[in-house]
Amino acid sequence: MVGYPTKKVKHENKGLYLGNKGMSFEDEINQSNEFYLVHDKAVIHKKPTPIQIVKTEYPARSKTRITEAYFVTPSTTDYNGIYKGKYIDFEAKQIASKVSFPFAFIHTHQVNHLRSVIKHGGIGFVLLRFTHYQETYLIDANALIEKYDNPNVKSLTYEWVKENGKFVPTGYRPLLDYLKAVDELYFKGE
Amino acid sequence: MVGYPTKKVKHENKGLYLGNKGMSFEDEINQSNEFYLVHDKAVIHKKPTPIQIVKTEYPARSKTRITEAYFVTPSTTDYNGIYKGKYIDFEAKQIASKVSFPFAFIHTHQVNHLRSVIKHGGIGFVLLRFTHYQETYLIDANALIEKYDNPNVKSLTYEWVKENGKFVPTGYRPLLDYLKAVDELYFKGE
Repeated sequence: MVGYPTKKVKHENKGLYLGNKGMSFEDEINQSNEFYLVHDKAVIHKKPTPIQIVKTEYPARSKTRITEAYFVTPSTTDYNGIYKGKYIDFEAKQIASKVSFPFAFIHTHQVNHLRSVIKHGGIGFVLLRFTHYQETYLIDANALIEKYDNPNVKSLTYEWVKENGKFVPTGYRPLLDYLKAVDELYFKGE
Repeated sequence: MVGYPTKKVKHENKGLYLGNKGMSFEDEINQSNEFYLVHDKAVIHKKPTPIQIVKTEYPARSKTRITEAYFVTPSTTDYNGIYKGKYIDFEAKQIASKVSFPFAFIHTHQVNHLRSVIKHGGIGFVLLRFTHYQETYLIDANALIEKYDNPNVKSLTYEWVKENGKFVPTGYRPLLDYLKAVDELYFKGE
């Protein structure tokens, strides 16, 4: 129980593949969702990180303390909600690579979850950030799945993403206006 | 750090107001959702319990261990997903009382979240179980909110729930067929 290095964790929703830079990408999305919510544009929330609780303590006159717990693999994507009456579901990923996003960085059951979402009439996508270029793209789940299901394809190249993804504009409010990309891709006729 | 009573927690998603009986209500819903998912009827998941992580350890050759964390108040409802192309969002509550469900048992921001869901064209409700009667009812969010916003009303009486809620049938598979109640209430014409 002692002797291990300990580390303060500032934020509640630490992504599994995301370091400090990831926190800020996640913060950008969360702040954008807050902006959308406050301005009545959409109701989209990040799901809490799934954690398996092993031990809890009940200190007198104090709130329940969890003293042993572990991160577990999420069974769905991180974000979902409703926009213009439609169910919206997406995963956010960032990558330091200049050339590609390897599929190893997304869980199979997350891809399968997006499959189900599409099948049931929802909008599904991945928000993909290339940190080197500081660029974020929205990749429609159908396009992602087509690549993912191809046994010869192990990653999405930056060039492919640039060509097939929707560029997500950044700004002041919201920080990351990904619903603009959603509008262009899924609500073009409206 | 020592001296407090410790307790093994079996399940990951412990509801804040739910004891052992609550676990089984939650399990019934989770198993029903699993049934709906496997049979391609709906994609509805419970959100993980939100937890604030304070300390983690990185034991050598082992997965990250969370050594200090606390439950935090959820900002949304526990369940959401997609059914027949529609966004679905609900909270599940159970009560031991024979006479009423007090509003003190639902968070204001959960009610406000349901408000937003309706406003954006989603389906919102509460699944309410009276454990004494072993009966579960679906209460449409609009009906709930009307009562909740009335300063003279502090609870939903069992009689009112029986009259205004949709009875949720129980069975073998799924254990709790709440989508049947959803069909009757929201998809009557289909």
